[in-house]
Amino acid sequence: MQNVDFWYEFASTYSYPAAMRIKALAAAQGVAVRWRPFLLGPLFAEQGWRDSPFNLYPVKGRYMWRDLERVCAALGLPLKRPDPFPQNSLLAARTALALPEAARGAFSRAVYAAEFGEGRTISDASVISRLLLDLGHDAAAILAKAESPEGKAALKAAVEEARGLGLPGAPCVVTADREVFWGNDRLEAALAWAARGGGQTRDTTDV
Amino acid sequence: MQNVDFWYEFASTYSYPAAMRIKALAAAQGVAVRWRPFLLGPLFAEQGWRDSPFNLYPVKGRYMWRDLERVCAALGLPLKRPDPFPQNSLLAARTALALPEAARGAFSRAVYAAEFGEGRTISDASVISRLLLDLGHDAAAILAKAESPEGKAALKAAVEEARGLGLPGAPCVVTADREVFWGNDRLEAALAWAARGGGQTRDTTDV
Repeated sequence: MQNVDFWYEFASTYSYPAAMRIKALAAAQGVAVRWRPFLLGPLFAEQGWRDSPFNLYPVKGRYMWRDLERVCAALGLPLKRPDPFPQNSLLAARTALALPEAARGAFSRAVYAAEFGEGRTISDASVISRLLLDLGHDAAAILAKAESPEGKAALKAAVEEARGLGLPGAPCVVTADREVFWGNDRLEAALAWAARGGGQTRDTTDV
Repeated sequence: MQNVDFWYEFASTYSYPAAMRIKALAAAQGVAVRWRPFLLGPLFAEQGWRDSPFNLYPVKGRYMWRDLERVCAALGLPLKRPDPFPQNSLLAARTALALPEAARGAFSRAVYAAEFGEGRTISDASVISRLLLDLGHDAAAILAKAESPEGKAALKAAVEEARGLGLPGAPCVVTADREVFWGNDRLEAALAWAARGGGQTRDTTDV
């Protein structure tokens, strides 16, 4: 079975529909998904962005919110604009990494549903704790692991890996042959690429 | 028949596959396309960008070139990276506007094929002249009209209209009910929207 890494940021708007879609799309292609939470903040800071580009560039931001509204409507996903936007995603990302890998997808979908579907504050430990409990986890133990030195280091390592891969934003799907596909609208192409064996021969003659 | 405006910038990379695809996609949906060349430069300058964001933000630029390579390969379109990038698109845009509307699509596709398929310099009047002649136009008359005060004013008016529409980049499809769809990867959604009558009711309750 082919594998892909699904890189997502809990504060990222288009990561929401992607996270809700990828499980079924991957299953249909016979592709296995590794859930890889990371943070865009440190990568954006290197480009001089201290806030979401959707806030820094209002024309782009206005477009994105309307586009996301259409995308979610077409998928039947509720959408409530987080306030503030972007949400601080540090705790959610560390918590996702503190969970066993097999539990990461369901937890991540629950975070997105709370954040973008209900407008809840995902930096609030009580919100994250409630989601963990609802999924049958030992919330106190997971949160303690998330905030431990090892938990913090795990997220830092993920951010470093994302930097090394050259991820330009979130969500991204990265195939076994390190092709990067950016955006909710590239999920299908990424999974089809992986299903073909992760490799049309890359043609570098023209570019 | 429903109408859409196809807004494109000759220097824009993703406008290339979009320009090559839109005619057949629109015909399949029974939608008529108005070709609307404009310039991104004046709109980007307002956001503080004095160069293509793909040059200003190299991580994004590297991703885009590889993605464009994959997109063009999947469509069977040749790709040769323009040098310099971005090309100065002023002459091509004025020339497109100087043509009768019915001739604008074929000319625009010819410009994109020369620029991104063959790596030719579209700011060169002899290149543009050759394309016009190959399409059976009176090249000298069209170029004179393009560079006349009226020709320059027509492009300025188009840029102002694009600004008023809030176009975040190129290409964009704008439907009769002023929905903006940005990107080569939104063509299908835009044309489907137009074919439905340009109007699911817009739901503004959540956002």
